[in-house]
Amino acid sequence: MYGEIITTGNELTSGKTQDLNSWYAAGRLTASGLRVTRITTVGDDVDMVSEALKKAVEASRFVIVTGGLGSTDDDIINEIVAKALNRSLCLDKQMFEKIKGHAKARGIEITPPLEKMAWMPEGAKMLNPEGTACGFSLVENEVRLYFLPGVPDQMRYFMDKFVLPEILSLYKTLPVMRQRILKLYGLDEPRIAGIFKELQGKTGDIVFGFYPHFPENHITLSLRGEGEPAVVKELDRVEGEIRRLVGPYIFAAENESMEEVVGRMLMEKNMTISVAESCTGGLVGHRLTNVPGSSIYFLGGVIVYSNQSKIDLLHVRPETLETYGAVSDRTVKEMTLGMRENSRTDLALAVTGIAGPDGGTKEKPVGTVHVGLAAGNDIFSGKYRFWGNRRQVKLNTSMMALDYVRRYLNGDPFLPGI
Amino acid sequence: MYGEIITTGNELTSGKTQDLNSWYAAGRLTASGLRVTRITTVGDDVDMVSEALKKAVEASRFVIVTGGLGSTDDDIINEIVAKALNRSLCLDKQMFEKIKGHAKARGIEITPPLEKMAWMPEGAKMLNPEGTACGFSLVENEVRLYFLPGVPDQMRYFMDKFVLPEILSLYKTLPVMRQRILKLYGLDEPRIAGIFKELQGKTGDIVFGFYPHFPENHITLSLRGEGEPAVVKELDRVEGEIRRLVGPYIFAAENESMEEVVGRMLMEKNMTISVAESCTGGLVGHRLTNVPGSSIYFLGGVIVYSNQSKIDLLHVRPETLETYGAVSDRTVKEMTLGMRENSRTDLALAVTGIAGPDGGTKEKPVGTVHVGLAAGNDIFSGKYRFWGNRRQVKLNTSMMALDYVRRYLNGDPFLPGI
Repeated sequence: MYGEIITTGNELTSGKTQDLNSWYAAGRLTASGLRVTRITTVGDDVDMVSEALKKAVEASRFVIVTGGLGSTDDDIINEIVAKALNRSLCLDKQMFEKIKGHAKARGIEITPPLEKMAWMPEGAKMLNPEGTACGFSLVENEVRLYFLPGVPDQMRYFMDKFVLPEILSLYKTLPVMRQRILKLYGLDEPRIAGIFKELQGKTGDIVFGFYPHFPENHITLSLRGEGEPAVVKELDRVEGEIRRLVGPYIFAAENESMEEVVGRMLMEKNMTISVAESCTGGLVGHRLTNVPGSSIYFLGGVIVYSNQSKIDLLHVRPETLETYGAVSDRTVKEMTLGMRENSRTDLALAVTGIAGPDGGTKEKPVGTVHVGLAAGNDIFSGKYRFWGNRRQVKLNTSMMALDYVRRYLNGDPFLPGI
Repeated sequence: MYGEIITTGNELTSGKTQDLNSWYAAGRLTASGLRVTRITTVGDDVDMVSEALKKAVEASRFVIVTGGLGSTDDDIINEIVAKALNRSLCLDKQMFEKIKGHAKARGIEITPPLEKMAWMPEGAKMLNPEGTACGFSLVENEVRLYFLPGVPDQMRYFMDKFVLPEILSLYKTLPVMRQRILKLYGLDEPRIAGIFKELQGKTGDIVFGFYPHFPENHITLSLRGEGEPAVVKELDRVEGEIRRLVGPYIFAAENESMEEVVGRMLMEKNMTISVAESCTGGLVGHRLTNVPGSSIYFLGGVIVYSNQSKIDLLHVRPETLETYGAVSDRTVKEMTLGMRENSRTDLALAVTGIAGPDGGTKEKPVGTVHVGLAAGNDIFSGKYRFWGNRRQVKLNTSMMALDYVRRYLNGDPFLPGI
């Protein structure tokens, strides 16, 4: 069952705003076993929107359109739909009452642009008559069309609450389609290509996808079949084969992030953690605290962006900094110990490195990073070299640091350093 | 001068990967005075790509296509182009030599998938014969077609280095088009609508755009004209009018981020800063350190995610936490003082709040946040209430904290709290 997505707005074709809506809709539809064949983005232009709409109706079973539903001059989707599908505009009384209610609550008058929102194409059915945001559906030649707000939060709400359930209920006869994502860290593309080679002939009808997602790499396994149990069993089998080859590199299956995985493991083991960050500047703490409930295991950290702060806040010895430098194995180890002393957590994680673009030397070029983890009586540490710009080095360093925690808690070996 | 963008790849139509390429290309083209009329995203499917390509050639002056240039089975753009534009595939000797060189350097053999990359559509011209990544251009019926790699960094490099300069050199007769972006923080949509109303009749031919970019709002001013000086002068005049109305809310013009603005101001005033973060978990430090050279003014910080760490690392008094709670004006003020004592910086910034989704109470609901800034003998602070999910509350809090620094350094009043 296949469909299209049309996103509208000059802010999209001018590159001012990222098109989060098509991305979200495509992901949700795919995860539900549906297929998106085309995504078209056009500006607030009657002819371009009409053309996209007509073409989608000819070629697809469902069409999702976002944007153009508001009250500003750019918001002309109702008129375009009426014109493109040759329907008249009718005053939707329910919608008009809703608009009047809102205007009254805000103490403003009903202006023509506000009233315009209530003039909807003949046959339009409001998706959420109770809510404040607008959205409607239409049927044209058995094709379902959904018109959703351009504001991403509202669009997502409509998508999940109304559109997906309706489409899925209409097409129940679909064969089962299941997809699985494996997220890997620390293996480069050629080595992942090696996995696929190794698996050749052992993967039945499964379709593989490979998606670099810096600094992660994602592999998808997709399979269509008659029944859920058989499809799941086959996916399990092939996932097992992949895990046999590169198990420790797989940090998550499905949509868990590295920080969610680490958080879940810390919870399961009832352990606490703190972080001492130099080159990442707070990013490791930021990622850990993106997870709801992280205050249970993450107690705090320090950002030591100067030598003095490493001495003051972590009691790194001045002689260490003088002899080995701030970016050294000795320093990162003392950082982990100082952090653990500060916070009395089970684990203390530390990173120090050169994020660039300046600050590199011949011996310690930009991208040189040390990661350390104090756990029990041990301090684990490694030296790594990352490529890329400042943000990429920071991101890769935060990833490696979190991966240290994951591998430690899993009993897996750490990624080899340089 | 108008054109289209076509991005290809199953990872895009399935929503696995965000389409950063069309966003970047659209933004760069628009900023250069060109217009993008349509963005089409299709999977790795011969028919869909062919159709998009043919339609774009019919309707546009230039077409930018990304993806499908690599060596995997999905990478079939060369064949599709040949088929869609009715051209034969020819072995490009230069390209073949390049591939052989790379294979040799990596110690791998030339396989058919690698050789495939050297079979290019007749008339294709390599964009960067010296580089490692591939990309080529073609001319079909006076329409320029550019085929670029799907990897965002490579695509951006090609776009800026080869594609944009070529397109601009071909269409020099364009009238001048200049766009300006004003970034605002702390004004909601209705209040921004008020600005536009106030400006009615005073803005000549300038076209306005309004782009919410949570938690920022961006206003663009665009103007076409015969000559650069007159266009710039008129934009200056209207920007002046807007600044007269809402000057302190405008934190940046053009593409500076809040952290870049704050960093630049700290450098200019030769001042240092440190941060004490509770609910943001390191995000303020992360943002400050995203700016190259930030180690000059940002000395460090602490992430105090537990009451105990507020006591241990910042010497917040236990009685304060007991009487007023961790999320209170008293606590945020003591945090700023403790931070400044730790770091001896000119400014010490602190935030504490409830990011959610749990932890809210009736008196202190999720989204309640206190921001504090110690500067000289003063401590400035405010209480705010943000809406949204955990990440949004964190982001808004980090923004408000950085805005405190900006407004302090500017001598502007702080945003009113609750």
